[in-house]
Amino acid sequence: MRIGILGYGTVGSGLVDVIDNNKSKRDIEIVKILVKDKSKHKDKKYFDKLTTNIDDVFNNNIDVLVELIGGLNPSLEYIKRALSSKIHVVTANKDLLAEHGNELVELSNKNNVNIKFEASVGGGIPVLKPLIESLEGNSIDSIYAILNGTTNFILSKMYNESLSYDDALKQAQILGFAEANPDSDVLGYDAARKLSILSTLAYNNRVYWKDLYLEGITDIDAKDMEYAKQLNCKIKLVGQSRYEDDVVSASVRPVLVGNESILAMVDNEFNIVVVNGDSVGELSFVGKGAGKLATGSAVYSDLLDILDNRSASINSFTKSRVKVNKIVKNKCSALLRFKDCQKDEIIHVIKECMQNYDILNDDDDELAIMVHANSEYEINNSLCVIKDKGYCVGVNKLLKIS
Amino acid sequence: MRIGILGYGTVGSGLVDVIDNNKSKRDIEIVKILVKDKSKHKDKKYFDKLTTNIDDVFNNNIDVLVELIGGLNPSLEYIKRALSSKIHVVTANKDLLAEHGNELVELSNKNNVNIKFEASVGGGIPVLKPLIESLEGNSIDSIYAILNGTTNFILSKMYNESLSYDDALKQAQILGFAEANPDSDVLGYDAARKLSILSTLAYNNRVYWKDLYLEGITDIDAKDMEYAKQLNCKIKLVGQSRYEDDVVSASVRPVLVGNESILAMVDNEFNIVVVNGDSVGELSFVGKGAGKLATGSAVYSDLLDILDNRSASINSFTKSRVKVNKIVKNKCSALLRFKDCQKDEIIHVIKECMQNYDILNDDDDELAIMVHANSEYEINNSLCVIKDKGYCVGVNKLLKIS
Repeated sequence: MRIGILGYGTVGSGLVDVIDNNKSKRDIEIVKILVKDKSKHKDKKYFDKLTTNIDDVFNNNIDVLVELIGGLNPSLEYIKRALSSKIHVVTANKDLLAEHGNELVELSNKNNVNIKFEASVGGGIPVLKPLIESLEGNSIDSIYAILNGTTNFILSKMYNESLSYDDALKQAQILGFAEANPDSDVLGYDAARKLSILSTLAYNNRVYWKDLYLEGITDIDAKDMEYAKQLNCKIKLVGQSRYEDDVVSASVRPVLVGNESILAMVDNEFNIVVVNGDSVGELSFVGKGAGKLATGSAVYSDLLDILDNRSASINSFTKSRVKVNKIVKNKCSALLRFKDCQKDEIIHVIKECMQNYDILNDDDDELAIMVHANSEYEINNSLCVIKDKGYCVGVNKLLKIS
Repeated sequence: MRIGILGYGTVGSGLVDVIDNNKSKRDIEIVKILVKDKSKHKDKKYFDKLTTNIDDVFNNNIDVLVELIGGLNPSLEYIKRALSSKIHVVTANKDLLAEHGNELVELSNKNNVNIKFEASVGGGIPVLKPLIESLEGNSIDSIYAILNGTTNFILSKMYNESLSYDDALKQAQILGFAEANPDSDVLGYDAARKLSILSTLAYNNRVYWKDLYLEGITDIDAKDMEYAKQLNCKIKLVGQSRYEDDVVSASVRPVLVGNESILAMVDNEFNIVVVNGDSVGELSFVGKGAGKLATGSAVYSDLLDILDNRSASINSFTKSRVKVNKIVKNKCSALLRFKDCQKDEIIHVIKECMQNYDILNDDDDELAIMVHANSEYEINNSLCVIKDKGYCVGVNKLLKIS
């Protein structure tokens, strides 16, 4: 099988290593590797295959295009060109799938070729293939997941080593777990895109990532971590979605998770995906969400599926875009932190509106209350009352999931 | 696709339900169901498809035989007959795979049909397919797993509710988690068979289940649970295997696992499989290890693979049987409990032989010591010395894994 690779960064190098490790067993020939600047790759293997000209890749009779550039442009154009030319596509590009999955899957169907993207969610964890193929007989009704290694690394460092957000981010950048511009990770975009891909496949409805409730981790501070410890919890950036009565609800936000929960066990660059199926019950997949070889291994598995002629329908991407609910309707608890506030008045409102509450801190500088309510609406309503009456200037809300 | 089902017990009924749930999407026609006694199934669906005559199944032009009788006979004969007649086989039968996997896979290759067995390991958890297909690019070097729901249920009850072994077993039997004759589960045979299947697929070498070190849970008592709690551990029946320098080592035995370990999170009827690949790192799969619909879902996924023409090589079953090491060569810790013993003399021997030790209990009735050694050999050697000198009548040893 002849492949062309676009991009020769971390994942590209990892894929090349995995292909080489398995050379004796599997005949996958690297024909061309597209790079921006050949001089930057002088010490790498396959230097003679490097090209800066995309036509060079397409004019060499390849069976599969492996897109590892990332981002929307020019990836979208190259992938469309491949599919239209009846060349299979393997990609790790969650941005592209989340944004243009529908047209790409349609185009692949039309041309009777595959587009595969195991590495786009959960890095090295085999999760899309089990979800699509092994769980097809199930109606999936919920997903809980830690999908972003960068933020999980930062939150783990803040919790375990009491680092500030800024120091944890710096360490993540030094270790290569965070980009120079970390926005896409820390603001939750990356996790939202991945959750939308999972939810689309799980619920057989197209879930568009921008329709999710989205909140990043940039406001989490040392004090949140202290409260979390006091509550026997950790703080994780969790993507969760549900499918109930034909309605999808979905969010990506930092939440408190009890230490007894499997989500709390997943630290640093590890990811977890928990799905709940009507037949299979609760299933969890845990592993490295990023990394050169881990992601390379996932891309490689897609290549083998094409080589071995194994395919499965991913037509849920072509379904019409569903309405997405952003609010938790079930019973829920939340940590509320009020700054510059009239404490007694706030407690009075809370007492009137909530089922139950515990005051964690009413020191001079802030009031922290754990509230237990019948739904997130209830919590939001009482916060509205408190703000309307001018009892506080700012409030932070951190849901707890169980 | 026309299928014949052998056996209409828990898993068979579960499969039929999953097929029916997906009837609108997938055309799988149940042609015949073989049972021993039709009168026992009067209230079930598809009563008109029941037969007590195996020829009735084979003479109806089926594409797939689904074997859910269990045990070696007559399953082996029926499956061979199917494969020889170029009929695909799906089975949940770990006993058969562990014992006759080699000849069955050879026979399926010869006749160019599939034999698939996702449900044989880990119940509803998709683990064999990810291992065979998604991780093919990896060299797997170790597996840790809780593979038997019955024993995990019993050990969870003993730990969490301080039940005796006998009471926990009785409860498992009442709830349907244990058979009237629980030997195959509690003595570890079931877990050993599953571990041998996983190890065969992971290491590309045939690992025969009888070659594993095997120890059941029947000697675990309330006192063990107390010590475990004292050590901040749980006790789990863990199957573990390694592949190092072309040698496989493998065991199924009750062990102490630290509460911070992911294995400790897996309680009751849940199973976990942790594999370590050179590219992907540590991957964990957690889910229900048994149950009507969970297992039905796994069997159903095999049917879809056949229906969609997806196949993968499982030729490691046809490899020659490897030597299996039964001893832990790495550093290890163990809880030693000596009954009717000369305590001072034993402590003297331990002090001379071990790196390190902690006395947990030296009350009248027993001496309990946690020892830390360079290998299991070291521990066994000192136990030999102690027994040879007549310092004790009996000793229980419980390794700790980390």
